[in-house]
Amino acid sequence: MNLRAPIQFWFDFSSPYSYIANEWIDALAARHGRTVQRHAILLGATFQAAELKSPVAYPLKREYSLRDFARSARFERVPYVPPEVFPIATQNAARVFWWLHDDGGPEAAARWARSAFRAFFTRGVNLSEPVALKALCAESGLDADAAEAAWNDPLWKNRLRSANEAAIAGGVFGAPFFMVDGEPFWGNDRKPQLERWLADGPF
Amino acid sequence: MNLRAPIQFWFDFSSPYSYIANEWIDALAARHGRTVQRHAILLGATFQAAELKSPVAYPLKREYSLRDFARSARFERVPYVPPEVFPIATQNAARVFWWLHDDGGPEAAARWARSAFRAFFTRGVNLSEPVALKALCAESGLDADAAEAAWNDPLWKNRLRSANEAAIAGGVFGAPFFMVDGEPFWGNDRKPQLERWLADGPF
Repeated sequence: MNLRAPIQFWFDFSSPYSYIANEWIDALAARHGRTVQRHAILLGATFQAAELKSPVAYPLKREYSLRDFARSARFERVPYVPPEVFPIATQNAARVFWWLHDDGGPEAAARWARSAFRAFFTRGVNLSEPVALKALCAESGLDADAAEAAWNDPLWKNRLRSANEAAIAGGVFGAPFFMVDGEPFWGNDRKPQLERWLADGPF
Repeated sequence: MNLRAPIQFWFDFSSPYSYIANEWIDALAARHGRTVQRHAILLGATFQAAELKSPVAYPLKREYSLRDFARSARFERVPYVPPEVFPIATQNAARVFWWLHDDGGPEAAARWARSAFRAFFTRGVNLSEPVALKALCAESGLDADAAEAAWNDPLWKNRLRSANEAAIAGGVFGAPFFMVDGEPFWGNDRKPQLERWLADGPF
């Protein structure tokens, strides 16, 4: 019996640090008897609400960030090939996530999250291109026509909008972002703090 | 005999993450047969050059950042009391650093760095107030009148300006910032990557 609340995890499919975190979060949760509740969001929406920009939007920070994305992936021993087109628009991939989540359950959505992240960050599959996204859906075992219909459907557009609004209302201003029993952690680099919090409780 | 290059470490006296890093950097360097070369700079100058702002300047990020400063200090088991006045102007404290550095050597400057950081981040001593800063100089075993003369002297004003310019030219856009054999690391949270790099070499 597990009465512990799931770890909340917000991500954007175009965020390299979200991709890296998506690779370690399930094992970390399992080590501490937790599950993971994923939330696909758009960083564009949270950046706008928080008056922030992407780290690669700043001249001096950009070069370092590109270097740090790759180094942080190697540090976690996660495969990573910098996508040629970056960053990309991820609303369609995120709508597919919510469609799967609400119709098939969190595990179906989590499988899609892994598949889409790995396609973008190891093979450069451009999730913003409908043709490429549809092919990835088919390759990932989804009904590609139904997926395309979903990302064009106002229902799933609204679902994503609601997810963004809920995230912003909850204090999420970037990604990856985590919440454990109400405690917020921002960034792939908060993994050690997150792990100690889960193991030993609040510090 | 130690032929390994020192770890370069840039900091601003008003940066909580710089304070935390200043508490662990010497032990970390020593574990790997390195020394630390400190550079007091002004984040205001690097922010301006990089078109960045302080994390506490953004509405949604501010609350999280204040929480994360304290939690990150506890994570490293470093004493931390959020200063009531924050952030503060640190040019005088930084000029004292360079005066000591050039006249007394890096270890004298490092002692002052520890003393000033701890005064601000554990006792709220406002380093931007000349009276408080002068008292802290005396308490830290310095000639307080000579320190005050130094922070008003164009020589040390220029020395700090040069340090800022050199940092920006070297790609430093925030603090704490580290360089190990040419590899840049930004942030207190890059400690694990820094340590693996020092232990095992480039990864």
